Amino acid sequence: MTVRRLSVYTRSLLQLEEDGVKTISSQELAERFSLNSAQVRKDLAYFGEFGVRGIGYYVSGLKAELQRILGLDREWQVALVGFGNLGSALFHYKGFARQGFRISTIFDEDPAKWGKAVDGVNIQSMEDLPREAKARNLQIAIVAVPADGAQGVTDQLVAAGVRAVLNFAPARLRVTREVRLKNVDLSIELETLSFYLAKDTR
Amino acid sequence: MTVRRLSVYTRSLLQLEEDGVKTISSQELAERFSLNSAQVRKDLAYFGEFGVRGIGYYVSGLKAELQRILGLDREWQVALVGFGNLGSALFHYKGFARQGFRISTIFDEDPAKWGKAVDGVNIQSMEDLPREAKARNLQIAIVAVPADGAQGVTDQLVAAGVRAVLNFAPARLRVTREVRLKNVDLSIELETLSFYLAKDTR
Repeated sequence: MTVRRLSVYTRSLLQLEEDGVKTISSQELAERFSLNSAQVRKDLAYFGEFGVRGIGYYVSGLKAELQRILGLDREWQVALVGFGNLGSALFHYKGFARQGFRISTIFDEDPAKWGKAVDGVNIQSMEDLPREAKARNLQIAIVAVPADGAQGVTDQLVAAGVRAVLNFAPARLRVTREVRLKNVDLSIELETLSFYLAKDTR
Repeated sequence: MTVRRLSVYTRSLLQLEEDGVKTISSQELAERFSLNSAQVRKDLAYFGEFGVRGIGYYVSGLKAELQRILGLDREWQVALVGFGNLGSALFHYKGFARQGFRISTIFDEDPAKWGKAVDGVNIQSMEDLPREAKARNLQIAIVAVPADGAQGVTDQLVAAGVRAVLNFAPARLRVTREVRLKNVDLSIELETLSFYLAKDTR
């Protein structure tokens, strides 16, 4: 099962919990959230212990288990590198904090920004990274710098002990085996749409 | 096959083409881009006409076919609604134009921004949407407004004839059946990382 689907189920269950739903069958879950019903049934079968025959799954119990698997049962200290338009937008993105991802340090190469604070979070020089990484137990970093600076920044992050990197720069990055790297390519999302539009005109 | 995988294959083939590679087997493709080899073989079997037994697939031919299927063989006129930090970051995102998505109009509710131009693209009031949508044949819109304004903006877009919406606002939007809606949830990307970090500490 892909981790992405676990995330989608977790969100759906959160929504159901907010709506006061106590139990749900895989079929209902699929219908309410426009998911593939055979896929949902197969995926959730792994979590049989949270199900009751003939009724479905306990919403809260299953949600808590999926959150635990996704590592959402704790708070992660996240470093944001790059505080331009994208970095700033990501910093203010509400969804991160809600899921337990706390951007606790911002790094930028522009000295004019050093020492400033945004919502209580300091903007610092990359020179401060090794110290901050230790002091704050930074394990995840978001890279939001231009393409040509991304590899250098990533190397520094890895050297400072960061174990997972979410990269928004349009650059192919190399990391060592022990480091998890995830590249976000926003145009892939647009392609899902153009695929359907193109299909309609074919 | 998911559309997302088609996008990933297209990117890999583009990269190979740039590297001067003429043909590639599904196995090699999987290895070079860290993809699931059984999945790649199965997926590409649909495109057997671009393959040669014992050799693999013609990189350029297969790439062009996948681009055609994804609707990337044409230029799409895209409307951007919301020109705050996120909207501005998306406007300057290099990946969109490279794939044929051209943000040709920007809408924002702040009158102070109206009439200004960014890289030759005008910022306008949503009141101008119906006229612009027709004049520019806007078919895709990117919604980058705060959550509480997203549904209203989307309704206006749909009324103006926009057929596909890429939504970055953390809001559950409703659209009519004929309209394609894709919600981007950036925290899902972070969850892929926390999943692996949590697994390592389990």
